[in-house]
Amino acid sequence: MSFIRLLQARVEVSGSKLCVGLDPVLERLPEHLPKSLEGVRSFLEQIIRATAPHAAAFKPNFAYFEALGPAGLELLQEVIRKIPEAIPVIGDAKRGDIGSSSEQYARAIFEQWGCHAVTVSPYMGTDSLEPFMARADRGVFVLCLTSNPGAEDFQLPGLYLQVARKVRAWNTSGNLGLVVGATRPETIGDIRTVSGPMPFLIPGVGAQGGALEATLHQAQDETSIPCLINASRSLLYASSGEDFAQAAGVSAQALAEEIAAVSGKAPSSGQP
Amino acid sequence: MSFIRLLQARVEVSGSKLCVGLDPVLERLPEHLPKSLEGVRSFLEQIIRATAPHAAAFKPNFAYFEALGPAGLELLQEVIRKIPEAIPVIGDAKRGDIGSSSEQYARAIFEQWGCHAVTVSPYMGTDSLEPFMARADRGVFVLCLTSNPGAEDFQLPGLYLQVARKVRAWNTSGNLGLVVGATRPETIGDIRTVSGPMPFLIPGVGAQGGALEATLHQAQDETSIPCLINASRSLLYASSGEDFAQAAGVSAQALAEEIAAVSGKAPSSGQP
Repeated sequence: MSFIRLLQARVEVSGSKLCVGLDPVLERLPEHLPKSLEGVRSFLEQIIRATAPHAAAFKPNFAYFEALGPAGLELLQEVIRKIPEAIPVIGDAKRGDIGSSSEQYARAIFEQWGCHAVTVSPYMGTDSLEPFMARADRGVFVLCLTSNPGAEDFQLPGLYLQVARKVRAWNTSGNLGLVVGATRPETIGDIRTVSGPMPFLIPGVGAQGGALEATLHQAQDETSIPCLINASRSLLYASSGEDFAQAAGVSAQALAEEIAAVSGKAPSSGQP
Repeated sequence: MSFIRLLQARVEVSGSKLCVGLDPVLERLPEHLPKSLEGVRSFLEQIIRATAPHAAAFKPNFAYFEALGPAGLELLQEVIRKIPEAIPVIGDAKRGDIGSSSEQYARAIFEQWGCHAVTVSPYMGTDSLEPFMARADRGVFVLCLTSNPGAEDFQLPGLYLQVARKVRAWNTSGNLGLVVGATRPETIGDIRTVSGPMPFLIPGVGAQGGALEATLHQAQDETSIPCLINASRSLLYASSGEDFAQAAGVSAQALAEEIAAVSGKAPSSGQP
């Protein structure tokens, strides 16, 4: 099944548009867990079990596993294999290189780590993304307007819309999407106008403080292609005690329900 | 010793400005080598031994090792440890993420894999590069104008100069450089004017067909900070026979000497 079909099916079954980011940091593990690879393994297994019922997708960020060395990347393989089959996995890798090198990155992320989708950086243009995009069964989220302060350096004022326009043109297989930060909700409507129907992956709601309601109303189009709201640290580190997994589950459920409530509501019109 | 000092010392000792890219592909290994991790190990050990005398730096591209899975990344650690200490290693990873994630990538590339320098993508702006740039002892090459066709999608006509300008402003510790493709030599003079003195890492001369002489004359400034010409596939796959390492060594020596000859020459003025 293609990524987009898997995602649609998962959103329908779970009623959730929450993407659970997996960003394990040794120093932030719950106090009772060892600050080791074993600790990370136990942490992630429990986090996944507790949040899976409320997850439309999981999004491990490769950076956090690479920081643990080759054994961390082996752990990432294990972790991905333990995610329930019905839940798509987005490999957050933000890759992009000349075509022949991106070919190898695509092979790594889709075959070696078995991700259903990937995040990529558009800086190097068409041929740098081709090897990812050519995999019609996999999803490709292209960085468009990111949630961090540095988005102002190059993406604004116009580059992010140029990227959205290109990604729309590239999207002949219907497997592309955009990464659109929640920290600048006023821009999302413009991106949607330019991009046409495609999924948005939206980080920046939790620890980064973006506005959920404004974001979702601007992001969602009239199709059944879901937009995903990502939360990572606000769930993973909801508690540093032995109840960390339960706390993550409760936070995930609350956020998933908030997203569902806001998604169901008509846009606020200023009337009572 | 900082990356830039190490690089200067190496260029002085070796007389070479050649950067040897390490991009191992199973299917392209010499015929007599097994198409396995063992084959790649043997291939790279012999390539490094044969080209080291002519190398100012080695540049393993992470994509090719990731495509081999976690064991490939373990092999990359081994390979880097086998590179002679006097020769700097540039981790070609093209990373870039929000600050907290880039922090983990920096930890991975500098600590886990022990690279002296890294390539990064500027799309996400200042805070995405900060964790790399903050390591004054390490080199950071920011993608500016790349050698692939896709450079025309977003980098041209003006973004690459905007990037060069920012990188100059960020370069307070003197540890930054730019990735500038050799496939558009007419642009390099403008980049140098904007960037001021800093090393350029220049791919695209070998398999990608850029013009060496025009490139070097535009790239080199009046300081002793060297520009590096990278070649990967044209050296690694110079022969598919049992003489592959010797052929790589001969090709590396020839290219290093050509670079030295061209660097020493005054720019051609159209006079006899």
